Amino acid sequence: MAERAPIQHLVSLQDLSDREIEDLLDLSLRIKKRAGAFRLEGKSVGLLFFRGSLRTRTSFEAAMHQLGGHGINLNASSDFWELESSEGARMDGKAPEHVKDAALVLSRYVNALAIRPALAGQSWATDRRDTVIKSWAAHARVPVINMESALGHPLQALADLMTMRERLGELAGKELAITWTNSPTAATPAVTNSLLLAALRMGMKVRVAHPSGFDLDDQVLSEAGRIAEAKKTSLATGLTAADAVSGAHVVYARSWMSLEDYGNPTLAASRRSRATGWTIDENLMKKGKNAVLMHAMPVRRNVEVTDDVLDGPRSLVYDQAENRLHSQKAVLVTLLR
Amino acid sequence: MAERAPIQHLVSLQDLSDREIEDLLDLSLRIKKRAGAFRLEGKSVGLLFFRGSLRTRTSFEAAMHQLGGHGINLNASSDFWELESSEGARMDGKAPEHVKDAALVLSRYVNALAIRPALAGQSWATDRRDTVIKSWAAHARVPVINMESALGHPLQALADLMTMRERLGELAGKELAITWTNSPTAATPAVTNSLLLAALRMGMKVRVAHPSGFDLDDQVLSEAGRIAEAKKTSLATGLTAADAVSGAHVVYARSWMSLEDYGNPTLAASRRSRATGWTIDENLMKKGKNAVLMHAMPVRRNVEVTDDVLDGPRSLVYDQAENRLHSQKAVLVTLLR
Amino acid sequence: MAERAPIQHLVSLQDLSDREIEDLLDLSLRIKKRAGAFRLEGKSVGLLFFRGSLRTRTSFEAAMHQLGGHGINLNASSDFWELESSEGARMDGKAPEHVKDAALVLSRYVNALAIRPALAGQSWATDRRDTVIKSWAAHARVPVINMESALGHPLQALADLMTMRERLGELAGKELAITWTNSPTAATPAVTNSLLLAALRMGMKVRVAHPSGFDLDDQVLSEAGRIAEAKKTSLATGLTAADAVSGAHVVYARSWMSLEDYGNPTLAASRRSRATGWTIDENLMKKGKNAVLMHAMPVRRNVEVTDDVLDGPRSLVYDQAENRLHSQKAVLVTLLR
Repeated sequence: MAERAPIQHLVSLQDLSDREIEDLLDLSLRIKKRAGAFRLEGKSVGLLFFRGSLRTRTSFEAAMHQLGGHGINLNASSDFWELESSEGARMDGKAPEHVKDAALVLSRYVNALAIRPALAGQSWATDRRDTVIKSWAAHARVPVINMESALGHPLQALADLMTMRERLGELAGKELAITWTNSPTAATPAVTNSLLLAALRMGMKVRVAHPSGFDLDDQVLSEAGRIAEAKKTSLATGLTAADAVSGAHVVYARSWMSLEDYGNPTLAASRRSRATGWTIDENLMKKGKNAVLMHAMPVRRNVEVTDDVLDGPRSLVYDQAENRLHSQKAVLVTLLR
Repeated sequence: MAERAPIQHLVSLQDLSDREIEDLLDLSLRIKKRAGAFRLEGKSVGLLFFRGSLRTRTSFEAAMHQLGGHGINLNASSDFWELESSEGARMDGKAPEHVKDAALVLSRYVNALAIRPALAGQSWATDRRDTVIKSWAAHARVPVINMESALGHPLQALADLMTMRERLGELAGKELAITWTNSPTAATPAVTNSLLLAALRMGMKVRVAHPSGFDLDDQVLSEAGRIAEAKKTSLATGLTAADAVSGAHVVYARSWMSLEDYGNPTLAASRRSRATGWTIDENLMKKGKNAVLMHAMPVRRNVEVTDDVLDGPRSLVYDQAENRLHSQKAVLVTLLR
Repeated sequence: MAERAPIQHLVSLQDLSDREIEDLLDLSLRIKKRAGAFRLEGKSVGLLFFRGSLRTRTSFEAAMHQLGGHGINLNASSDFWELESSEGARMDGKAPEHVKDAALVLSRYVNALAIRPALAGQSWATDRRDTVIKSWAAHARVPVINMESALGHPLQALADLMTMRERLGELAGKELAITWTNSPTAATPAVTNSLLLAALRMGMKVRVAHPSGFDLDDQVLSEAGRIAEAKKTSLATGLTAADAVSGAHVVYARSWMSLEDYGNPTLAASRRSRATGWTIDENLMKKGKNAVLMHAMPVRRNVEVTDDVLDGPRSLVYDQAENRLHSQKAVLVTLLR
């Protein structure tokens, strides 16, 4: 990133140039080989979790300690309160503090703020705007890192690209099948969105399989279409699992909620109950081109993916999880140095 | 502090000599300039929060890490249990452990204990005694630091003095207006009490504005009167905001609960609803002597203070918040070295 | 431990050879004298608490920091979720992740996992199996440390042996009285089990006093009997406090629940109410051979043990608590080096 102004925040990978993404991937791979060469002595990162986390929190705290720094874990349930985010509000209600003030004050204490915002959970049109993380980024005087918002999960996408790069080398032209899986606790499309856009930018051919009613966000899809055209690669969505996986180098399993039922658990449950047979097994994997399995985890065994696939030689899920550590170090070193 | 026995605890600034306070302010300013020169390698501080915190917890953990030490965050909701504090009690009730034993055991693990005790919230006469933090200090074999009790907030007062010293230089003779503000979540008078006494000890002229029924604690006021007389400075309370601010160098906005309604939310709400017009705006600020605005935060924008004042050039609120970090380092270095 | 394969985990002291236990005790005493000589720079330990903790958590975090490493505190209530532990399960229920996957992923981030599992609390026959901690140990690729399971508390037993070694020197032939005490919040027999077996392995003569209906676990008792025979020492259980303490060098006070009432609070309460007079006082202590008092804490003052005994010259309870820090450092250094 020497040639250009350093990136300020990491809210979305779409804010980064292809070169910046390449630099982060190269740095991630270098750090994995010789972690000791990169130091952030005395630096602190505030970890603000408005939703629970196991992998992200542990990998962030471990990454900071291994770099000589420190992650300060702030848990909304005990350390925090509701924050006002609208400008000019007369704050006579529930929220005792404005996100502007929390961001400006914490910027005086720590060197970066990593945030997993809460979801209102009522309307996708509202939550997809990611207003909370954007207002943190607008007000903070230190880098803001998105630890998964409604719309995207850039840190997961970086680890995903790193893992595919490790296994497949050059990604341009390689084929990625993103396959919807059935889970009683479906997540937002954040992971899928970030992976979809990032893989296309790498020049991968992407095929997305999902049942009817589980289409991805319109604006994300049109953005994906523009990227596919610019990169002269291909994008297909709404496929069956078999069609998506056929000839793929990578099968990426992910369960996401139907945006049509967003905020309506009853409808969502009944729609999900009709989406049967979306479990990834050896028979499906065989349709791929010696395909590897990826999953961001946590994974529902024998519901999303069968044990034999997850525990088999083609499963990259643990390397993928480990790469969260290395790629987050690359982000931290890039933003804080 | 070389000339005298080092201070054991920081429960109240009243336990410190003027010289000790001056030394802490000088050290705070030196640390702000060259933090790297002060180290607490391998030292740990236990952070015991029986009430939530954002600023205090983050600044403490960041301070300890920047000094080469470590803050161990202990959250009452998950890590802790009710503690017995009366001597000789037959402990057959709810509390499984005596504060004496918790204090003596933790003294074997960490180098200091920083505590924000819970409030019973029933009677001010009871809570003002600060029995919990005092029993921690009585039993601990390591320094105990008050992170805000019912009666006082010495760490905030130190950061407040440091901030005024930075801006105004010598404080003797300068004029401080402490102005009550209207908030749906009024705090205890702890911040006001500590600031009032500390500012008078610095020789400042202090004027306190508040609606009727929001008088400060009797014993704190008589202590303040004694200090004002000893320091040959002045103290006035119960003023209107306009009278207090007129000619002031510093306007300190703070909302505190009525001690008459302590433990009675219904009465408190109705009394507060009658205290209208206590918002600090540009018109009020103009009555000061080129006055700066201070607030311990969190601040209710456009209820306690208007946006234009908070975001204007006379606002010191973010420097004041940052100085929590530096002055806490000074306390830690003084108590732990 | 140079002569043999290093221990992989610390789930139970029964997994260690006598030599390994001796080595841990020697190392604990060396570390207490010169802590600075032992370093774990850049190493992290994940602390997984599925039940609350004060002593264990603080001593672990302090130990890791003093060694140059870092303890990452993961609190089940906020950072965690329910984990599936049965092999081959079709995970369509509440648990979104399998303990196998949590263990394998966390093994990529940290250098060891210290775990205090939850108790189902319904059936002792079930909980005594310690299936959760055993499945963590089975799947993790880093050492797993038991921070107290239903059946045992090896870290407490190590600190207990260290404390007795400090005070009594050679333990073979010394007499230990483990005396049940009455508490409204009785614990599992974990501490008693681990101490009983460890003390016998050191060749101590052990006498256990408890009211009828509070017998220890059958399998633990037969294991204890085998050890007593092999070590040519003696074990007696079901004694009165007076008979157990008579001639003892150490009186170890501990309250444990009746396994007959396990999972039935009503029965347990009524049985406990009938077990009167089980408080350790000076008169009882006098029956010992210049006996010292030990207790793992938290202790119910004047219910389990009187103030005069706890605060008297024969009480080792604070040294015993401090030794948790040193002996845990010995475990960490042994497992992580």
